[in-house]
Amino acid sequence: MRISDLSRQTGVPIATIKFYLRERLLPPGTPTGRNQAAYGEAHLRRLRLIRALTNIGQLELTSVRELLTAIENDKVPLPALYALVDRALFPQEPALHSVEGAKQVRADVDRFVKELGWSPDMDAPSRDRLALVVLTLQRLGCECGMEYFLPYAEAAEKLAVQDLDLLPADGVGADRAAVVVRGVLLDVALSALRRMAQEHHATLRFGATKADVRHA
Amino acid sequence: MRISDLSRQTGVPIATIKFYLRERLLPPGTPTGRNQAAYGEAHLRRLRLIRALTNIGQLELTSVRELLTAIENDKVPLPALYALVDRALFPQEPALHSVEGAKQVRADVDRFVKELGWSPDMDAPSRDRLALVVLTLQRLGCECGMEYFLPYAEAAEKLAVQDLDLLPADGVGADRAAVVVRGVLLDVALSALRRMAQEHHATLRFGATKADVRHA
Repeated sequence: MRISDLSRQTGVPIATIKFYLRERLLPPGTPTGRNQAAYGEAHLRRLRLIRALTNIGQLELTSVRELLTAIENDKVPLPALYALVDRALFPQEPALHSVEGAKQVRADVDRFVKELGWSPDMDAPSRDRLALVVLTLQRLGCECGMEYFLPYAEAAEKLAVQDLDLLPADGVGADRAAVVVRGVLLDVALSALRRMAQEHHATLRFGATKADVRHA
Repeated sequence: MRISDLSRQTGVPIATIKFYLRERLLPPGTPTGRNQAAYGEAHLRRLRLIRALTNIGQLELTSVRELLTAIENDKVPLPALYALVDRALFPQEPALHSVEGAKQVRADVDRFVKELGWSPDMDAPSRDRLALVVLTLQRLGCECGMEYFLPYAEAAEKLAVQDLDLLPADGVGADRAAVVVRGVLLDVALSALRRMAQEHHATLRFGATKADVRHA
């Protein structure tokens, strides 16, 4: 198919597709003439993957590039692929160590994770990210100590295992693009569902009408 | 305290604080002399709130401004506050209706939500957002129909109720800033925990060593 077909099928403007080609996020098509090339299903799929990560996942292009490279490199084992998704999500992590009181909270997080029986890498960005959330909530007066996060951890573990169950038992031949895209997009799904549940239950409890919501 | 104290206690540069003052995200301090003003605990708290929403929640300033206004306006009922958090998260939502096949998936989402017994507003952005995720995953060949999201919905509901239990039963006198900040930050906590659980369980199953992860 031509670049205009790619554009039509995905809704991505031609200029953006050309940009992805120049940036090598999309591999070049097969030349069919002066300034023309043919693209295949692989291009379509790759383009959808890029848009999912940037538009829905709100990832930066540098993170997308890193993830695409890792998807294509079978030498990167599956757990490393998950670790890379972790890194991609907050590329400009606020430096935790520069925040007052952070050391104590990070130690609390590490103890909490250990008590869960988990052993993610000590450098996993999620450790600092969780510590930053806990510290910030405490600073803002929310009454949520580490024990508040136990149901969160239980839910996270259950969903993580469900995701892994979609893969072949030995991991061989796993759809690596799907691993990445689920890693990113299911966060968004979970957030959307939490928001709907909150709105529903808040309305049940506090009884605002829909009109209240709309005219806020 | 002076602006330099605010800066020291929060790690926010003075120039950024001045920008927030100009933009009226922070209320002015009490003038104490030519070009000097005194700031109080309320400023400190407000500044921490802004940083939590922008740095950790990655919200845009226009969304932050909308949320701050709603926090201060007691006429905005609590359910509407949750609805506003929903709207703030994806201000530039990709328009679902422009995507091929979207109508069907949105109908699937609406049926799913109804079967859960939830009744968030039909205009709640999370409905479209979930539909977009489902559609994108299907397009990319992931085998996850709506039933795949049932455990996600159950987890979301449980956590939403736990959050609401932190508020007074009648909602009166609820810490409205805390409602907003938990709404945004607990998504990040949940994502961080899901990531750690995934890395841990992927390593258990597929046995990559930590060295693999680091040298990926």
